[in-house]
Amino acid sequence: MQDMEKDDRIIGLSKQMWDEYLPHISVDSVVFGFNEDELKVLIVRMNIGKQWLLPGGYVRKQEDIHDAAQRVLKERTGVEKVYLQEFGVFRSINRSEGYFGQYDDDLWNKQRFISIGFYALVDYRKVDLQIDQLSDSCEWHSIGAMPELAMDHRKIYDTALTVLQQQLSYKPIGLNLLPERFTISDLQKLYEAILGKPLNRGNFYRRIMRFGILVKHEDLRTGGAHKAPNLYSFDPVKYEESLKGIDW
Amino acid sequence: MQDMEKDDRIIGLSKQMWDEYLPHISVDSVVFGFNEDELKVLIVRMNIGKQWLLPGGYVRKQEDIHDAAQRVLKERTGVEKVYLQEFGVFRSINRSEGYFGQYDDDLWNKQRFISIGFYALVDYRKVDLQIDQLSDSCEWHSIGAMPELAMDHRKIYDTALTVLQQQLSYKPIGLNLLPERFTISDLQKLYEAILGKPLNRGNFYRRIMRFGILVKHEDLRTGGAHKAPNLYSFDPVKYEESLKGIDW
Repeated sequence: MQDMEKDDRIIGLSKQMWDEYLPHISVDSVVFGFNEDELKVLIVRMNIGKQWLLPGGYVRKQEDIHDAAQRVLKERTGVEKVYLQEFGVFRSINRSEGYFGQYDDDLWNKQRFISIGFYALVDYRKVDLQIDQLSDSCEWHSIGAMPELAMDHRKIYDTALTVLQQQLSYKPIGLNLLPERFTISDLQKLYEAILGKPLNRGNFYRRIMRFGILVKHEDLRTGGAHKAPNLYSFDPVKYEESLKGIDW
Repeated sequence: MQDMEKDDRIIGLSKQMWDEYLPHISVDSVVFGFNEDELKVLIVRMNIGKQWLLPGGYVRKQEDIHDAAQRVLKERTGVEKVYLQEFGVFRSINRSEGYFGQYDDDLWNKQRFISIGFYALVDYRKVDLQIDQLSDSCEWHSIGAMPELAMDHRKIYDTALTVLQQQLSYKPIGLNLLPERFTISDLQKLYEAILGKPLNRGNFYRRIMRFGILVKHEDLRTGGAHKAPNLYSFDPVKYEESLKGIDW
């Protein structure tokens, strides 16, 4: 990492962090939203260096790590009780020590941190993005147009996307990314956005129906040029049931 | 937790732990082996209190957490480079603070620890079990006959078994639990042991063949009373390929 200007606010916060937070553990979240047929990810630009990072933070001494991840996301998005899934532990030695290399060794942030990775699925329309005192921007970026991410955050993001793609193979995804009622075509577009490729409509329909998780509604979506398509929603009980895997 | 005798060796090691290890992070492993048609798990009995625990330990200041888990298992089993998979983070507040409640607050082990859970799949025949200075027994127990586990180790074990069962739905398991060559019946017995129920032979055969991961060999298993069954092995390339999930 090149020599970089120091952010006095990070130095100023260090003592308080040592007093109030648990050293060596951090949380980082890959927040996915779906809008205009594109999968988007929430990223934050730091004041100093103008580098992009995933939204992350530290854990208070008596705080649960999932609560810490929720708190960080609430500060960023205004949304509470986001759907969060732990998906991996990011642990390379020097991941934080190196990133804060220009600071003194006793800086809180320069210690060795092992980061618990979460992915979050949020309703894009409900999010109200916020900057904080260390960042000057917080934005959605389409997964096809992500800027460079600092530290090991590209690896965290890549892993989250791969996990999400793999999970599509055996469990449904969509409950938290789509509005309550949607068409099969909306759901297919979401799957296509996650997988990054077009899917055959007939195969998609058959596979989704095999999960047995959709409820078909009487009302149709109106306003389009074509025949109005049926609206569906997820059956929450069957959705939960299907997450358990197949019955041999 | 009831008042319990203190183990002087734990107190004696505390200063060295503070000097050499990373506080607040630990590793615990659920080691699965397969023998005589039963799935078995490796557990350790502590000297003081005679309580059973999963094999676990701490992380050196400059040691990778996967290397730490491997080191702990090598000390217990004599086996190096075990197949290890991270499967969850165990994080309840008071999980270690409470367990070491009878000791002084500055004891290393009494700090808040967040534990990274791994499951390991090992070849039962290659394992040479070892006790250490804090334990008086290290044994395989069949999953149908597990004693009570202390701390949150029952939860760690239950989660590992559930993850293993779920993974059978969409990816093959067996490469590290069976000898190199096995019959379809051996593989079915392994699946039955993991799932804890009998499976239909024809359905099992069709599902396993659909993965496309087996190589059939010319030689047969001999010595049985019935017609000698075919021997199979895993095709390592296709096995790896199948772990990526289905192709939509």
